[in-house]
Amino acid sequence: MGVVCALAVSPALAQTVPLPSWNDGPAKQAIETFVQKVTDPESKDFVAPENRIATFDNDGTLWVEKPIYVQLTFALDRVKALAPEHPEWKDKQPFKAVLEGDMKTVAASGEKGVAELVMATHAGMTPAEFQKIVSDWLATAKDRRFDRGYTKLVYQPMLELLSYLRDNGFTTYIVSGGGIEFVRNFSEPVYGILPAQVVGSSIKTKYEVVDGKPTLIRLPEMNFVNDKTGKPIGINQHIGQRPIAAFGNSDGDYQMLDWTTSGEGPRFGLIVHHTDAEREYAYDRDSSVGRLDKALDDAPAKGWVVVDMKNDWKQVFPPEE
Amino acid sequence: MGVVCALAVSPALAQTVPLPSWNDGPAKQAIETFVQKVTDPESKDFVAPENRIATFDNDGTLWVEKPIYVQLTFALDRVKALAPEHPEWKDKQPFKAVLEGDMKTVAASGEKGVAELVMATHAGMTPAEFQKIVSDWLATAKDRRFDRGYTKLVYQPMLELLSYLRDNGFTTYIVSGGGIEFVRNFSEPVYGILPAQVVGSSIKTKYEVVDGKPTLIRLPEMNFVNDKTGKPIGINQHIGQRPIAAFGNSDGDYQMLDWTTSGEGPRFGLIVHHTDAEREYAYDRDSSVGRLDKALDDAPAKGWVVVDMKNDWKQVFPPEE
Repeated sequence: MGVVCALAVSPALAQTVPLPSWNDGPAKQAIETFVQKVTDPESKDFVAPENRIATFDNDGTLWVEKPIYVQLTFALDRVKALAPEHPEWKDKQPFKAVLEGDMKTVAASGEKGVAELVMATHAGMTPAEFQKIVSDWLATAKDRRFDRGYTKLVYQPMLELLSYLRDNGFTTYIVSGGGIEFVRNFSEPVYGILPAQVVGSSIKTKYEVVDGKPTLIRLPEMNFVNDKTGKPIGINQHIGQRPIAAFGNSDGDYQMLDWTTSGEGPRFGLIVHHTDAEREYAYDRDSSVGRLDKALDDAPAKGWVVVDMKNDWKQVFPPEE
Repeated sequence: MGVVCALAVSPALAQTVPLPSWNDGPAKQAIETFVQKVTDPESKDFVAPENRIATFDNDGTLWVEKPIYVQLTFALDRVKALAPEHPEWKDKQPFKAVLEGDMKTVAASGEKGVAELVMATHAGMTPAEFQKIVSDWLATAKDRRFDRGYTKLVYQPMLELLSYLRDNGFTTYIVSGGGIEFVRNFSEPVYGILPAQVVGSSIKTKYEVVDGKPTLIRLPEMNFVNDKTGKPIGINQHIGQRPIAAFGNSDGDYQMLDWTTSGEGPRFGLIVHHTDAEREYAYDRDSSVGRLDKALDDAPAKGWVVVDMKNDWKQVFPPEE
């Protein structure tokens, strides 16, 4: 009976041809070789399933991050939606610029300005209310260039990679610089990743009994920035184990890749290099969003696989429904 | 084949008689009734497996917390072990009192004193080094009264409850006021709970490249106190879902129980009441460790099940090996 059941859940049946949207080439080959060796009980590189931890950046690794992060688009749309309740925003930067569609001034407001926009739009409600706001927005908002909702602008080859790893006993985590409760909103239906398997940046939350009901309220104060050196720290805090595989696309993922692949035993690091201006975008060193510079330089020495989106991926997005 | 496989992993086979160390009575009955209704697809109270989240306090709920928390015993032992490297401790409180075995003065140093002891013994190393220190200690340290290692002073009925819930599709989490990396050290071998499923208090960690190697270093600075109102906040941050069942033993678990059981749909709250001075300890309202007062008063109105350890448990600890 054991054998029958092992067959019933075998990767072979779950996904007959793994990674169908990946062209044959060194990237696909490297992924398959790694998975085979860590799952083969006879291999010296065998890794027990509970240690098969794989972490994925989100923006630019699992979905489109250009021309600006989806979560920033959300914040801008929320500023517009909330403007009637905030007449003072008409005269207050960077809100004024958002309302006037003056993206140059918004950009010039820098990290501090963006933080103000995020706090004004992401705090002051319960996590459940925030989830509702995000999912209502995701249900209708569309990317202009592709005329698609954002959850349809995920990378089909990466969806297949997530499934392939899970079929082989991995636990897949998102480790995002984006907001943990923003990403949790869609991680399960879109990526098959449960809320508990999302690590991200966060604002503080307070507990309060309101009208006799225990309530959590999101506060306009940063709690943790899960980017750059914050990624290994967030992983250690949240997962409590060093991953054996990490997937990113920018220098914000450098430390996660470096920490992951410098552990003992078999390790895997992969960078999605955006080389496809026609089907998606082409950018790296000079990009303000998703800048990929040092990680690209160091990839060969570190043994990180660099995916050439244009050549390695048969298709970029899932087919239209 | 589907039917065969369902049988192969059915709870019936995994644990033929669930909860064997629980006496028949209202507590055991309430647990079984709850589990049956949330797992029965025909029940109006059915809960999908991904939402079957159960959270457990650790000290006093899963293992002994008297006469002082195990983690504090660890800290005291570490102070003694590290004393040769810290000659200044001979004249510095509360270290002096620890070295002289003057527990009255240690207790009088209060939370601030305990925090000093924790920082001096829990920080300044990598998480992996800390794990090694904790596991070496756990392998040899013994509780005086019971003459057993601390990981043998876990409650057999609660181990069975953890298994019973997991066999029924629940994910079980520890949500402890204790240190997250302390508890992670033994949670998997002792409770079957993976590191990622431990939520706890934490100190800050920094990322640094040391001799070319990415390294995390534990810092002597509090990051988060996962107790009282911190428990729902920690759960929300870490798990991202409100549990449907929560298990505690003290007022430190009040907010976790209250937040859990005030959600919509079927909910379950349980308090382990220490009523067994002979086999373990008897304490509640006046205890400095594990004080149970308000939660005990409010349990009937809140619908929380109160376990009477003396009468509800056939045995307290696992059998001697």
